[in-house]
Amino acid sequence: MKNMLRSKHLTCLACSLTLNLLFIINMYVGGEWRLSWSTRAAVEAETVAATYCSGHGRAYLDGLVAVGNNKPVCSCNACFTGPDCSHFIPHCAAVADSGNPLFLEPFWMQHLASSALVVVGWHQMGYTYEDSTYVSKELEKLVRRVHATVGNAVTGNRFIIFGAGSTQVLNAAVFALSPENTSSPARVVSSVPYYTLNKEQTEYFSTEKFEFEGDAHTWRNRSDTSSMNVIEFVTSPNNPDGQLNKAILHGPNVKTIYDRAYYWPHFTPIPAPADEDVMVFTLSKLTGHAGTRLGWAVIKDETVFKRMMAHMRLNSMGISKDAQLRAFRLLKAVLEEGTEIFDFAYQTMKSRWDTLARTISMSSRFSLQENNPQYCTFYSKIRQLSPAYGWLKCEREEDKDCYAVLEAANIIGRRANQYGAEGRYVRLSLVKTEDDFDILIQRLNELISKEDGAKTFED
Amino acid sequence: MKNMLRSKHLTCLACSLTLNLLFIINMYVGGEWRLSWSTRAAVEAETVAATYCSGHGRAYLDGLVAVGNNKPVCSCNACFTGPDCSHFIPHCAAVADSGNPLFLEPFWMQHLASSALVVVGWHQMGYTYEDSTYVSKELEKLVRRVHATVGNAVTGNRFIIFGAGSTQVLNAAVFALSPENTSSPARVVSSVPYYTLNKEQTEYFSTEKFEFEGDAHTWRNRSDTSSMNVIEFVTSPNNPDGQLNKAILHGPNVKTIYDRAYYWPHFTPIPAPADEDVMVFTLSKLTGHAGTRLGWAVIKDETVFKRMMAHMRLNSMGISKDAQLRAFRLLKAVLEEGTEIFDFAYQTMKSRWDTLARTISMSSRFSLQENNPQYCTFYSKIRQLSPAYGWLKCEREEDKDCYAVLEAANIIGRRANQYGAEGRYVRLSLVKTEDDFDILIQRLNELISKEDGAKTFED
Repeated sequence: MKNMLRSKHLTCLACSLTLNLLFIINMYVGGEWRLSWSTRAAVEAETVAATYCSGHGRAYLDGLVAVGNNKPVCSCNACFTGPDCSHFIPHCAAVADSGNPLFLEPFWMQHLASSALVVVGWHQMGYTYEDSTYVSKELEKLVRRVHATVGNAVTGNRFIIFGAGSTQVLNAAVFALSPENTSSPARVVSSVPYYTLNKEQTEYFSTEKFEFEGDAHTWRNRSDTSSMNVIEFVTSPNNPDGQLNKAILHGPNVKTIYDRAYYWPHFTPIPAPADEDVMVFTLSKLTGHAGTRLGWAVIKDETVFKRMMAHMRLNSMGISKDAQLRAFRLLKAVLEEGTEIFDFAYQTMKSRWDTLARTISMSSRFSLQENNPQYCTFYSKIRQLSPAYGWLKCEREEDKDCYAVLEAANIIGRRANQYGAEGRYVRLSLVKTEDDFDILIQRLNELISKEDGAKTFED
Repeated sequence: MKNMLRSKHLTCLACSLTLNLLFIINMYVGGEWRLSWSTRAAVEAETVAATYCSGHGRAYLDGLVAVGNNKPVCSCNACFTGPDCSHFIPHCAAVADSGNPLFLEPFWMQHLASSALVVVGWHQMGYTYEDSTYVSKELEKLVRRVHATVGNAVTGNRFIIFGAGSTQVLNAAVFALSPENTSSPARVVSSVPYYTLNKEQTEYFSTEKFEFEGDAHTWRNRSDTSSMNVIEFVTSPNNPDGQLNKAILHGPNVKTIYDRAYYWPHFTPIPAPADEDVMVFTLSKLTGHAGTRLGWAVIKDETVFKRMMAHMRLNSMGISKDAQLRAFRLLKAVLEEGTEIFDFAYQTMKSRWDTLARTISMSSRFSLQENNPQYCTFYSKIRQLSPAYGWLKCEREEDKDCYAVLEAANIIGRRANQYGAEGRYVRLSLVKTEDDFDILIQRLNELISKEDGAKTFED
């Protein structure tokens, strides 16, 4: 009886211990740490993240919630709908216009522990870091390490500045490279087809110090340029066509801003580390986190660096520390996984390009940009481009409005005139979700199969 | 023997259960959830946050780490140093220049669970939210609820736009309120003493559409203004002097941007909800998170709203989703705690003002700004201002450079010429840490005690 009581007692002890440990909020991990303040938020975040959305959507912590039960609502991929995104919308359009880099989302879904971020309420409340700058030194170190790992940019003995995406950084560079006191504004140019924003942004912010002057090609043989201040945007790899552009204009009064957003193994062979005076990168096209708005410039000249920093102060009193913290966590994860993200990104983009190229090869109506293989120092092999965008050309004489040709086939690309180019071209985004890409290929196949004399896979 | 074995077995079971639950990384909370991907990050964040810094500093997740052991380094308050910030630096300067709102840090240190944020690696990677805008609808709802709770702004039937701090929002408003096609730029004015950035930013970004024209007072009686486009900045409560300013200029071509950054019970009585056409707020002066860079405008006119949104696209391709997520979590915590943050902030500022006023009252050399009590609808009582800054005046004829007078006494304020005002004034920040404030008062007491005929507390 005594023993029975004793064993009952021990059973209760076991139960009690179990219950205590199951039901209390605190926890020991590896005997080392008792989680306290983060538990509630962790449970909430994991619960939301685990919302079932059929693989065609996801639920966000700050996403919409259902009226009534307050449960998170799935944010569905294009062409999918329903409470769990399982319902396919037939005949929906293939929307291939934006450069939303969601092709990297699956990578992060596979690397949850290394990329998770926990932030205490009092984290970094001040405007500046301890060194009175707007730039996190620890993030800066990681940026340099990532460039060293990939070998895509020289960062030694260079300044690094952050901004709200490459968008804010590019404009800061234009301001910083414009003459301070002049009666004649700097002429800002870029070679067609150029990144839309170069024109839009420069025109919008144009002052007496700089103005947009269009295609760099038209300035190449002008004799009056030697006395003018010129700023050339070189997007390399180029947006929209993925080519490894080089500067067209040179001279003592020519400054060049290299937009290196796409200079990662995801999209291009890396022939050599870039080593230009002003090089602009963005988290968006490296890890896929466009929404974080974190871009950076690698800068040789201290005066340019200081002027860009002053720009950041006057434009937004620095750079969001939350964006910098997120980038810090993500780049740490990138480095922790060796070359995994680059392999994932390259394989994904290569596979999409193989599919797209095969699809377009069936057509005599459409063609894609050139794709000359080059040696890639990162992969130690010759490889093709795998650009973020297809720069589709309508080859038929009558198809002068290529956008309209695609639109009639339920494909929404981006008009070539946005890139200073003729309407015979359309940009097709290849960096969105797998669902987006699949639907794009499906719609292209439908369109091409209707061509007179279209080839078939059996040809 | 059998029973002994049995009880041993049960003891082991208890131990095993305990150990399993102690040492495995996963966890059930309330029998409902097993933490998985967030645990590692949570342990790391809690470990860093628990770093001992003597109450005179704190360690950050993305802060500096010690060479060698990689341990987080304490980021110490001004005048404190050493590995745990316990060493006071004698004779150090009282640096009272910046508006770093760290007076709210202790509030968040006391509300850890409600303000903690856990972010999954794939959180909100795209440029826009589900509705294709840059503005989180859930954050917008919280902003409206906070205004409703405080009664400091009418938000019903108004548009809300976010930006990288009030800094970016204010400039967006200038662009949006300037005439689109005109040969004569909008004249941007503000009444002296005005917020430094109004001048600096407007001058820096000035285009053919707008330019800065200085003090609004000088424009009041000009007869030629009726044909001009004028934009008046009204900072209310004012930075630097905390007064509840009203617009000076009126007319069909006058637009007003109300900077309401400080219109919270922390700093001022709330006589009535503000209801101006364009009102700008910022998280910085509400929760103290300046580093997050999250400001907003409440806007009546849809065209102005759309133009400001276009500005955000061209300036930074939207607003950091990480900044918006952080604000979302913090405002949720604010609402959850009822009026607690306002009570904490008001009590802290009031107590600092009582101390400062008492200190300055001992002096015949210095004076502070007017502080006429008003009825506060939030506290349902008449109360004084408790502004973010002391606007100190040097009363002696010879003290024309008040900044230099203070600097000689080891007090670093902010020069009045930055506010368009005469050198007889200095702005002293009262919103920094408790240590900063204590040292400021100590240095002021030292200075005042040396005055000929200085009063003493015994007077």
